[in-house]
Amino acid sequence: MNQAARNADAGRYSLALSVLKQAFGDQLQTGEAICGQHAHTTTWIAPEPPDAVLFARSTEDVAHAVAIAAEHALPVIAFGTGSSLEGHVNAPLGGLSIDLSQMNRVLAVHAEDLDAVVEAGVTRTQLNSFLRDTGLFFPIDPGADASLGGMAATRASGTNAVRYGTMKDVVLSLKAVMADGTVITAGRRVKKSSAGYDLARLLVGSEGTLGIITELTVRLSGIPEAIGGGVISFPTIEAAAEAVIATIQCAIPVARIELLDALQIKACNAYSGLDLPETPHLFVEFHGTPAGVDEQAALFGAIAEDCGAAPLVWSSDPEARTKLWQARHDAYWAALQLRPGAKGVSTDVCVPISRLAECIAETRADIEASALQAPIVGHAGDGNFHVLILVDMEDADEVARAKAFVSRLNQRAIAMDGTATGEHGIGQGKRPYMQAEHGAALTVMGAIKKALDPQNILNPGKILPEDVA
Amino acid sequence: MNQAARNADAGRYSLALSVLKQAFGDQLQTGEAICGQHAHTTTWIAPEPPDAVLFARSTEDVAHAVAIAAEHALPVIAFGTGSSLEGHVNAPLGGLSIDLSQMNRVLAVHAEDLDAVVEAGVTRTQLNSFLRDTGLFFPIDPGADASLGGMAATRASGTNAVRYGTMKDVVLSLKAVMADGTVITAGRRVKKSSAGYDLARLLVGSEGTLGIITELTVRLSGIPEAIGGGVISFPTIEAAAEAVIATIQCAIPVARIELLDALQIKACNAYSGLDLPETPHLFVEFHGTPAGVDEQAALFGAIAEDCGAAPLVWSSDPEARTKLWQARHDAYWAALQLRPGAKGVSTDVCVPISRLAECIAETRADIEASALQAPIVGHAGDGNFHVLILVDMEDADEVARAKAFVSRLNQRAIAMDGTATGEHGIGQGKRPYMQAEHGAALTVMGAIKKALDPQNILNPGKILPEDVA
Repeated sequence: MNQAARNADAGRYSLALSVLKQAFGDQLQTGEAICGQHAHTTTWIAPEPPDAVLFARSTEDVAHAVAIAAEHALPVIAFGTGSSLEGHVNAPLGGLSIDLSQMNRVLAVHAEDLDAVVEAGVTRTQLNSFLRDTGLFFPIDPGADASLGGMAATRASGTNAVRYGTMKDVVLSLKAVMADGTVITAGRRVKKSSAGYDLARLLVGSEGTLGIITELTVRLSGIPEAIGGGVISFPTIEAAAEAVIATIQCAIPVARIELLDALQIKACNAYSGLDLPETPHLFVEFHGTPAGVDEQAALFGAIAEDCGAAPLVWSSDPEARTKLWQARHDAYWAALQLRPGAKGVSTDVCVPISRLAECIAETRADIEASALQAPIVGHAGDGNFHVLILVDMEDADEVARAKAFVSRLNQRAIAMDGTATGEHGIGQGKRPYMQAEHGAALTVMGAIKKALDPQNILNPGKILPEDVA
Repeated sequence: MNQAARNADAGRYSLALSVLKQAFGDQLQTGEAICGQHAHTTTWIAPEPPDAVLFARSTEDVAHAVAIAAEHALPVIAFGTGSSLEGHVNAPLGGLSIDLSQMNRVLAVHAEDLDAVVEAGVTRTQLNSFLRDTGLFFPIDPGADASLGGMAATRASGTNAVRYGTMKDVVLSLKAVMADGTVITAGRRVKKSSAGYDLARLLVGSEGTLGIITELTVRLSGIPEAIGGGVISFPTIEAAAEAVIATIQCAIPVARIELLDALQIKACNAYSGLDLPETPHLFVEFHGTPAGVDEQAALFGAIAEDCGAAPLVWSSDPEARTKLWQARHDAYWAALQLRPGAKGVSTDVCVPISRLAECIAETRADIEASALQAPIVGHAGDGNFHVLILVDMEDADEVARAKAFVSRLNQRAIAMDGTATGEHGIGQGKRPYMQAEHGAALTVMGAIKKALDPQNILNPGKILPEDVA
């Protein structure tokens, strides 16, 4: 939208904001600093701040605000913790950011049903702290301590997904505010239902473009009786990927199987005080009974050995294990230290497991041919991997090379029956790949968007390309 | 629709059918017998035959036929094997039934990715026969040998769902013909994706009202190294339900845990040549490594004993196991023999596992108070159970009592945070409960239906109540 068009909206926006101010008082903030904090900043996508931020305290707050916004066609962007990576919380047309971080109550834990009901602003570590004494845990763990609402909105996953699934699998039901301010409950607190359209799973992954998730019922898992795991070094990244493929094909119920290339290991050694050989590694974890964990580890060890790995280095005590997985979760920050001052651009793709070794090998070669610095790290058991490109944003040529690389990476994954994003979502950054990935289905997505948000006020400019939304 | 209104449509319909006849020749059949076979007959819902049946041979056939139907606003009903239970394939407004049973090719098995691509008419046993030598199997097993397209359309599950999930979990992607004849591919052949709206899971469970599924990519599972299981007798159905609850709460990864009440056991003894004591039973099965199966069985045995069960009767050889599970799958036919000449009306609900014992106890008491004959059998590990009411359709008072009972059963399940159907779907029979279950979300379902099928030609009169669709 150009400045002239935006000016034309200005009167309408300012009327809407004054109505919102009257309704919400100090819960509504328009200061530049606060608005700036609610614009996206972690990639090369330019921040686009909203005109105001509402700190919502309840579903009713959100419904009331969206109803006012609908009356004035004011854009509304849902905001959790701001840890999304593809410009999801940017406000390209300005408008109202609704910050849900104060909606952070755990409303119920039904231990006997293995589920919990939470407000959207509860983060994954907060929920797990709350569950400490129940013998249960919430398994989905993206790198950031994201809010559960945001994780649902982006269909997040993480290192445990290979065994415990993604947000699409663990969200049983949710409460959402629709584009006209109506509150709906999508789905029921049951393990399965065949009662009509699966609105919960339509809203999961819709990135706030169809409704704003304010409450969720999520499935919990029992903390396994035994946990074991460790690290294992491979001569090449292809060998490591082959070991992952064989592990999945043998149906070993591995709980985590993470691939880190040599460059990422170097970064983790420096940042997290590890002392691993600077070769590609798998970080693995097995959950089960004591006998089951031993059985899985033995099977995996045999597979890895066939692929040329060094012996598995077992992390027997919980402390060593925590250090290891903290290092894995800090991979992004570790990588940034490889090139201080550079911007870290994290991108992800996902391919069928049979294509993983090939896709990673081609991508590694592409990184080198593009003269980029970019560690690869991934949830290899799902066929999902990340490339963290360290870009000097002052170097226009390097920025152009990095952008061209990302474009080729996405096209490569899609050509291999894969997807442009396994877990980060589309936001603004991945919109250019939606047509190649979805073809005619994109029109159906557009029709749903128009039906549920006819004024296009819910997170406009995200997911769907201009000509569809 | 009354006859006058229907007559008004007759000219339009007959034009559409003549265009279809020209396009498809003998693939289009209008004989009364064939049309009658494509109307629903297995419950008390009156059969409503279509005006014609098209035996489709390809996605292109379906797309072509739907495009013609769209031009003439002719209703189109997708038909798999006709084993649905709630009037799903009825044609209340007449129109065209598209029979997909000849689209029965397995198009690809990607053993290394644990998936298969099939046409919609492939049945579950056909796929499993095809997979015989691969070490893989397709786990979803509703009672009938349904088509995979139909199973996806109704979000089917079965005895293995407690461990392997339902159709919503195993459909990776699908091809569908939309209401204007456009063909889309929804979803990708990957384990996870965050790329836009989850159209695959919107179409799964939409019962042919949003699009007609013509092709599916489904996730397969490895045949477990060891399988063990057996039967176990309980003094009361509440005790059996308590054992199920404790098993799930202890996170024993049971593969099957089926509840049969005393009446159903009596029926199975007679029909399938079993000789079980006529008390409530659980049929259980454990999958894993040999040590894992033993471990699960021991844990389960201890739980069951605490609930007052007799010792687990282990079916060690595959033949005994097959006989047992065949008996379970034949429960419907067995029950019918309890009262020859009666209609078997199978209804299902699903509740959170913590409410299962209570819901079954109240339901058992309701059956007795209603003077009905109705065995209970269920996928108890999911909180899902079936009541098969044996109704003398000549006895108007009994029919009325049975209908009132079904209504109370659904209301009871919904009031317990449950759902009106765990796996049978809504069709015509469960539409009256959609409002109570979904509230305001029903309007959103209606908006999606209107956006994707503005003429309401795709399976009209199903899922959504009149005032919404």
